[in-house]
Amino acid sequence: MSRMLEEIRQQPEALTRTLSAEMRRVERFKRLLEKNRPRLVVLVARGTSDNAALFGRYLIEITTGIPVSLAAPSIATLYQAPMDYRDTLVVAISQSGESTDTNLVLERARQQGARTLGITNERGSTLARTAEHVFLVRAGKEKSVAATKTYTGQMLAMYLLAYALGGGVRMADLERIPEAVAAALQLEPEIDALSERYRFMRYAVVVGRGLNYANAFEFALKLMETCYIVAERFSSADFLHGPIALVEPNFPVFAFAPPGVTWSSISETMDRLKSLEAEIVAITDGGNREVESRATRMIRLPRRVKEVLTPIPYIVPAQLFAACLAVQKGLNPDKPRTLSKVTLTL
Amino acid sequence: MSRMLEEIRQQPEALTRTLSAEMRRVERFKRLLEKNRPRLVVLVARGTSDNAALFGRYLIEITTGIPVSLAAPSIATLYQAPMDYRDTLVVAISQSGESTDTNLVLERARQQGARTLGITNERGSTLARTAEHVFLVRAGKEKSVAATKTYTGQMLAMYLLAYALGGGVRMADLERIPEAVAAALQLEPEIDALSERYRFMRYAVVVGRGLNYANAFEFALKLMETCYIVAERFSSADFLHGPIALVEPNFPVFAFAPPGVTWSSISETMDRLKSLEAEIVAITDGGNREVESRATRMIRLPRRVKEVLTPIPYIVPAQLFAACLAVQKGLNPDKPRTLSKVTLTL
Repeated sequence: MSRMLEEIRQQPEALTRTLSAEMRRVERFKRLLEKNRPRLVVLVARGTSDNAALFGRYLIEITTGIPVSLAAPSIATLYQAPMDYRDTLVVAISQSGESTDTNLVLERARQQGARTLGITNERGSTLARTAEHVFLVRAGKEKSVAATKTYTGQMLAMYLLAYALGGGVRMADLERIPEAVAAALQLEPEIDALSERYRFMRYAVVVGRGLNYANAFEFALKLMETCYIVAERFSSADFLHGPIALVEPNFPVFAFAPPGVTWSSISETMDRLKSLEAEIVAITDGGNREVESRATRMIRLPRRVKEVLTPIPYIVPAQLFAACLAVQKGLNPDKPRTLSKVTLTL
Repeated sequence: MSRMLEEIRQQPEALTRTLSAEMRRVERFKRLLEKNRPRLVVLVARGTSDNAALFGRYLIEITTGIPVSLAAPSIATLYQAPMDYRDTLVVAISQSGESTDTNLVLERARQQGARTLGITNERGSTLARTAEHVFLVRAGKEKSVAATKTYTGQMLAMYLLAYALGGGVRMADLERIPEAVAAALQLEPEIDALSERYRFMRYAVVVGRGLNYANAFEFALKLMETCYIVAERFSSADFLHGPIALVEPNFPVFAFAPPGVTWSSISETMDRLKSLEAEIVAITDGGNREVESRATRMIRLPRRVKEVLTPIPYIVPAQLFAACLAVQKGLNPDKPRTLSKVTLTL
């Protein structure tokens, strides 16, 4: 069995551990922010961590109304622009805490007047030492190059950050995430069987919207890294603004299709795709009965959760799919060609 | 000849027209902003206009130090989050001015206390009526579905905005852009000949960094819309964080490789790609002599400009390449299947 699959299975306990161990720190940070609420939140990350940041962007704006910007690291590292970061909270996210450019952006932001928070899986890392405040992702050592349990751990940290910023995130709700993830893991045999159909897939598109938009990026990244599939990722709205021209009969499109406010947009895109005879694989749950008539194949999560809680459970079948498809293709998802676990760039 | 190609050729005069006709308005807006400088700039757009916004994000942060956020429209349109937009300038960019969600985000932002600017090619549009202030892109009617002259017009408007915000953008420099574009247009026969080599290309990756990062998005979008190529787009740094696993011998990668501060990052990526025996097509100019040993094919712009001015001339060969390759593939770039000129989404 691949380490990737092992680590996917460890997610319920990893999430429970992070949630219980970090609460005191989160409450302290919350009290600090109450005295001095930031006017802007800037999130800095690369790779999978950047996908967690993209999720955080939606979650924080939706639940707190504080504008969020996803940092473009080169503006600090290459152009060395002096940014005006008064009243700004800069949050750096990195599994290893050793991403050179992420750390450099954080360090410069601190000099430019920002308050800083680091989110990392490694308590002894440079990031943990550089940031004023730290939330630890307690996922345990991640050995597979393909990040899975640290992604969901970082997403959980985004909920904790939204809570600390005074967003309407309820702790009792967050405690239900690990069991929804455990339920999603039961899909493994079904997803393993489904993956065979895609053994010869060379390219694909993944669509999502709103809170599940970042999952489209993360699913596509997993397909690229572990299965060498040229996988595009779009919001269902942006997809209609041009890229849909790609689609011919049997073109594979994966869609995150939870019930809730994003369904109108996802369903419009699925209707267009169906009329173009695309192959549509939808990830959904029992709360959405309208998916069935539109999808070629469906992956239905066994446990329903409120829309704001869908992103963590919804990425699990996508992780399983990538891990199983890699094996179908005769590839080792733990050691993608040409990659190493920590990437140093400026 | 396609309308797309006609409109690509109209760019020098369109840029000159916009520059001279909008200056008075820009100066007035500048004086207004001097009295009350925004703390945050939010850019709202879809499709090609969103690529111009992505360019604007880099340009404004680099030249003014004011943080910029690219809006996620669903946060307003689907989640209806009440955003705190005090001291914020919200800028909506749309060729037609009739993009439903862009206009809705702008309208709500105005209610939430933001100052608003609209950038559009259509003076009578809903966007022009909704925004407090307007910069007109005077590109003339754009008939091809594939946007070209409005993209460079919107990029020019981003320079004007950076100037109005007090960034170190010199008007005398901007006046040199149209002639650099005219020089780039001379590459058409060379690019037409080159495009034949890619007649059967089905997928590709485009990389850029910093000020030319948005051009990677725009080149990829043109390849998707007009040539039905599954075209990924990455910053050269993000590409090394996972997606490079896609690359096998002869995998086609297009790279924006101007001289200047981004070259260290682009050259690192090109070195990795060369060791993987990828096919690398580099867009560069006479100021960068290090590209030659790394690229499989080179497109060299005839006129050198300062790095901050490269993005507009550098997209021109990419536009020409997409227009020529579409013809090589027997496709009509003016009428991509399943697309219409104005896309309405929420």
